[in-house]
Amino acid sequence: MGDARRYFDLSTPFAMKRGGQLHQARLAYETWGELSPAKDNALMMFTGLSPSAHAASSPDDPSPGWWEDMLGPGKYIDTQRWFVICVNTLGSCKGSTGADSTDPATGQPYRLEFPDLTLEDAANAAYELVRGLGIGQLACLLGNSMGGMTALAYLALHPGSVRSHISISTAPQAQPFAIAIRSLQREAIRLDPQWNNGHYSEDSYPEAGMSIARKLGVITYRSAMEWVGRFARIRLDSEQREEEPFAAEFQIESYLIGHARRFVRNFDPNSYLYLSRASDWFDIGEYGQGGVADALARIRLDSALVIGVETDILFPLSQQQEIADGLRNGGAAVEFVALDSPQGHDAFLVDIARFGAAIAQFLAQR
Amino acid sequence: MGDARRYFDLSTPFAMKRGGQLHQARLAYETWGELSPAKDNALMMFTGLSPSAHAASSPDDPSPGWWEDMLGPGKYIDTQRWFVICVNTLGSCKGSTGADSTDPATGQPYRLEFPDLTLEDAANAAYELVRGLGIGQLACLLGNSMGGMTALAYLALHPGSVRSHISISTAPQAQPFAIAIRSLQREAIRLDPQWNNGHYSEDSYPEAGMSIARKLGVITYRSAMEWVGRFARIRLDSEQREEEPFAAEFQIESYLIGHARRFVRNFDPNSYLYLSRASDWFDIGEYGQGGVADALARIRLDSALVIGVETDILFPLSQQQEIADGLRNGGAAVEFVALDSPQGHDAFLVDIARFGAAIAQFLAQR
Repeated sequence: MGDARRYFDLSTPFAMKRGGQLHQARLAYETWGELSPAKDNALMMFTGLSPSAHAASSPDDPSPGWWEDMLGPGKYIDTQRWFVICVNTLGSCKGSTGADSTDPATGQPYRLEFPDLTLEDAANAAYELVRGLGIGQLACLLGNSMGGMTALAYLALHPGSVRSHISISTAPQAQPFAIAIRSLQREAIRLDPQWNNGHYSEDSYPEAGMSIARKLGVITYRSAMEWVGRFARIRLDSEQREEEPFAAEFQIESYLIGHARRFVRNFDPNSYLYLSRASDWFDIGEYGQGGVADALARIRLDSALVIGVETDILFPLSQQQEIADGLRNGGAAVEFVALDSPQGHDAFLVDIARFGAAIAQFLAQR
Repeated sequence: MGDARRYFDLSTPFAMKRGGQLHQARLAYETWGELSPAKDNALMMFTGLSPSAHAASSPDDPSPGWWEDMLGPGKYIDTQRWFVICVNTLGSCKGSTGADSTDPATGQPYRLEFPDLTLEDAANAAYELVRGLGIGQLACLLGNSMGGMTALAYLALHPGSVRSHISISTAPQAQPFAIAIRSLQREAIRLDPQWNNGHYSEDSYPEAGMSIARKLGVITYRSAMEWVGRFARIRLDSEQREEEPFAAEFQIESYLIGHARRFVRNFDPNSYLYLSRASDWFDIGEYGQGGVADALARIRLDSALVIGVETDILFPLSQQQEIADGLRNGGAAVEFVALDSPQGHDAFLVDIARFGAAIAQFLAQR
């Protein structure tokens, strides 16, 4: 399997919003398509908490990406037209500098010595990358889930740097239900004795805590409605059942176990804690005099597409409406699309046909 | 503080639905009001997973009960008219026989040697109590949350034993979202090394697992809407914050910590596991040829009141509608009340004014 990641060296020192700084930090990113001579066809994407920059396959890495059906030549986001950049968030563990990276000052992993991370830091790092690529203004900035919050931070911090925006299933500020969920995910990791205040190793790893955190994530990323149709009360076959007391009996439990197994060893627990808390901290309202609405109305864009899903319990539709209203008050031509996809928050990863249609239609007018 | 509990000895052996039997088992219960000479004014209540039989104060135990404002002389459930019985569910740890009770065969606590527990067992045990009290037919059987499922089991297993029924925020069968939540709560307990396959002690107790389980419970018992209004993004004062990494910063986190602290040492972890799994197993559809609707339509009642809450994500309104429709098809005069209380599943414990009004109006016609 190839690797299509490229790396961009951030300015050194790179100052963080809440204090502290990074030295010799870098961002991993991937690109698709070609930057036009006028450099006016760049579309940058911010991801959710866990995905890498590998949104789609490419000659350098033919493995399917996390948005494989959305992005590519002739697809909804057509890489024959757009120069697409997907950034691995600062603080993640998929190539960008994060808590599992080596601190050049000590030669050891940062672990909990990594400075406080905010989504503003992630936005500022990506802004440096864009400038480093010689792009004066992004044609489009797209963000989903946590990446949608990062995109709003980018827009607030770098006026005039983006022409159009696509906001998907995100939040202008973390609400208490989402904070409660994420706080509990972090607690599950922190309470795992193997977490050991961040000093775990491959041999002594907080699997239990990461498993609970991931399962809780999956529960809130989907919807009860989808699961009624998909799993109902179907039982596991007896040979699928484990012998231990209170082991899984229902397919829904097995589904969660599968999700957890694929995640637990593939995401750094400390990085998870940092990104999760950064999401809780985010509040676009800090950039206005009158809270969220005012801060959103200060953002200058030509146009925006805001998409939300009725069954999303983590980033509710009301928050997407709030973003759409706010950006419209700022003068952007805003299209608001409310989808009734049954897949909840994760619909943008699953219901590609409907998300893709809305995105393609929006991009066709740009 | 007094103790108003009475105890009823179940038949010995008491056969369990999935096999196994209990010896010298008993139920704890409390009563309010007086049984009429014709024994036709008995109203029995089944509780949710964690409450005790102490629904309201009484001369023997003047401490407030978990439904203090609902129940008492002149209150919505008027104990000057009704002889009210509240049962501590079989398998609970509040006086009835459960996993933390002594197994008379060994002189040791049952722990995981307690037989498989179902809500049908809980219903059958309560039926013995009713007969033991000399009551041929209950005037009303009320159940909320898990207790609503227990009540449906009672109605299916003991035809003709109840005249009217009040069903509150419950389910005719466990749906996959609720199973997923409960399974994760059980996993948090099971993964806690101190759980030790059920062999914990006061000194080595699965506090971490119980804390996560309870917090997840509270998150699903309430609603995102309520918390936006109640907690928003209010921070803790600096003196309220703990020093440890990733400690709570928001009031919503502190609220969950408070709930967990009040619960963790006050409910037996093994009993929690048994009752939680019993909820997952429940499916009224087992009592019909055509699934849930048919099973409900086989239940014979004069009348029923079914109450649900729009913001309940654990026992969604659609399931309350399903119960109402099914019982109506069985010939009962059914009143269905959908409340828009913001408190989610827990609304019946909080929004007493509206639940009480619906219940009082229903009971006035009986």
